[in-house]
Amino acid sequence: MMPSKPDNPSFVPNPGPVLRALAKDAGATRIIALCDENTLRHCLPKLHTHFDHTLVFKPGEAEKTLATAEKIWQHLAHWQITRKDLLVCVGGGVICDLGAFAASVYQRGMPFALVPTSLLAMTDAALGGKTGVNLGPLKNYVGSFATPVGIVLHLPMLETLDEKEMREGWAEMFKHAAIADAELWRAYEERAITTKAPEPDLLERSMAIKLRIVAEDPLEKGERKLLNFGHTLGHALESWHLEKHLSLPHGEAVAAGMWMEAWLSEKTGQAEAGTHVRIAALIDRHYPALSIPESAVPAIAAYCRFDKKNEADRVLCTLLRRCGEGVIHCPVRAEQIEAAIRSYCAWER
Amino acid sequence: MMPSKPDNPSFVPNPGPVLRALAKDAGATRIIALCDENTLRHCLPKLHTHFDHTLVFKPGEAEKTLATAEKIWQHLAHWQITRKDLLVCVGGGVICDLGAFAASVYQRGMPFALVPTSLLAMTDAALGGKTGVNLGPLKNYVGSFATPVGIVLHLPMLETLDEKEMREGWAEMFKHAAIADAELWRAYEERAITTKAPEPDLLERSMAIKLRIVAEDPLEKGERKLLNFGHTLGHALESWHLEKHLSLPHGEAVAAGMWMEAWLSEKTGQAEAGTHVRIAALIDRHYPALSIPESAVPAIAAYCRFDKKNEADRVLCTLLRRCGEGVIHCPVRAEQIEAAIRSYCAWER
Repeated sequence: MMPSKPDNPSFVPNPGPVLRALAKDAGATRIIALCDENTLRHCLPKLHTHFDHTLVFKPGEAEKTLATAEKIWQHLAHWQITRKDLLVCVGGGVICDLGAFAASVYQRGMPFALVPTSLLAMTDAALGGKTGVNLGPLKNYVGSFATPVGIVLHLPMLETLDEKEMREGWAEMFKHAAIADAELWRAYEERAITTKAPEPDLLERSMAIKLRIVAEDPLEKGERKLLNFGHTLGHALESWHLEKHLSLPHGEAVAAGMWMEAWLSEKTGQAEAGTHVRIAALIDRHYPALSIPESAVPAIAAYCRFDKKNEADRVLCTLLRRCGEGVIHCPVRAEQIEAAIRSYCAWER
Repeated sequence: MMPSKPDNPSFVPNPGPVLRALAKDAGATRIIALCDENTLRHCLPKLHTHFDHTLVFKPGEAEKTLATAEKIWQHLAHWQITRKDLLVCVGGGVICDLGAFAASVYQRGMPFALVPTSLLAMTDAALGGKTGVNLGPLKNYVGSFATPVGIVLHLPMLETLDEKEMREGWAEMFKHAAIADAELWRAYEERAITTKAPEPDLLERSMAIKLRIVAEDPLEKGERKLLNFGHTLGHALESWHLEKHLSLPHGEAVAAGMWMEAWLSEKTGQAEAGTHVRIAALIDRHYPALSIPESAVPAIAAYCRFDKKNEADRVLCTLLRRCGEGVIHCPVRAEQIEAAIRSYCAWER
């Protein structure tokens, strides 16, 4: 069976032979699995693959740290894993980002494969070669661009997700439509509330949007920033929750971030009238509103100053021109960001 | 003044304008210096450059850790340094390797320039795009391949070195001749003991050897491993000293490593007869023999099992065919390594 190439991954019915072929091509003599306690139980058995070692961490964003990466490196070194052996990351966004980062700098880079197990990871973390861990509350502040030797997509993994996890993944699907496909966005608007797995052709269409944008700008010098719609505020919301040791899944943060950045798109004159109300309607239909205390608003806005897209002293957002077309490098002021958060909180739902 | 390109760096009489041109080309609005307490005092003033922030660490290999890298990232984040700003690493091998690694993964990569201040860093760490920090005692176990925006070579930096530091740098010069230039090796043999700065043309010839090898194999898939002559045992010696909290400068470790690996070259049948005695004579003429207790021999040999060039369960060394020609991928057994160390210790000098 052919390994699944990173620039054009496809779904495979039987991941075991694919993983073994990837290991063979890499010249690996050992295969190490990285997973969390959930994917260890529910996803690893679906791979029907022998792993020489298995690294297991607790699930959740709180583990996506340098300290966890250091534990990975220490285990790999202890087992005398060489830079020809293969690390297979089996999990959601945290495991994919963390494992890919750890592999990309272990002995200056060892081969790694990604087996995304959540809808979110299939549409986002597993595609595009970004890796990273958080630095304290700052999202993905230490990381690399690194290409996996393969991305192994396996639809039955989606059967392991509950409705909340599935909705998380839909957030990135909505984002891809919002920035690049007006027709797809309209289709989402006309659809009933979606808490199930997307049809495979819809999933592939969403992935294709991300892969096309990444292919044109792999190192995010310009247009790839389109994919960051919803992420300046989304990451700031995540940072504030991380700081407070509160849980906020990435997909829900991005959903709220898109709401707020759609609001900013109209208020800064980037978007045509009516754009925000359409984005807000779809988001509010799928996601319960986050509960944000008024006292948190300046802190969340302040986190936007740490966004990786910023230049010099300016916060630069990716906003929308309309539903289906994004625009990068939009300067936004702190008071506008605060107003966007307050508008989200005060919105009548 | 033209910035100094990484693939063909040249000496500049006046580094200030070069650094400012590099910052401008990168679109940086801020320049941050990274140095140690020695280079802060002796080398930074020679640059005649304004730095917006200066990061200072203690000198020495013990600082080349993930913990130090994390301090760098925390400071950069605190100052809201963006991925367009410029980090300038002003120091020897530790500062160049550490700073380049930190920059290469901060926000997935910010521009960095190298200002090597030691002979060792000019001929080794600053060239070739390898970055890294140690993982406990394991040398450069976490790192990346990353290209600086510029390498600023400034001969007056060498005036800051004492004889011991100068000798360290000569070790890499000797290595370049040993692996790739028989005529240069003979010239070194005929030369008086060298504890001063090399003539600039000799330094450039040595750098040219490294740059040529790196250009042909930047990611060390094959021939670049030639540059690792002396480093399997050199790094193992460093690891043992790090573990024991004993000081061993990299150049001295590589010198002893070359001695031992020249011995292995003959014992494994790779090298023509007489190769080891020539290598040993030059090394012993320049470097006092390391004092290695017999009890340390198995531990040092065991560290060779962690060498990054290894594959599967085999220790793979770079050895010599003769003085002036190296050979990569030579399997060496643990008992042969122990014998090499014992031979070094028992040698009549």
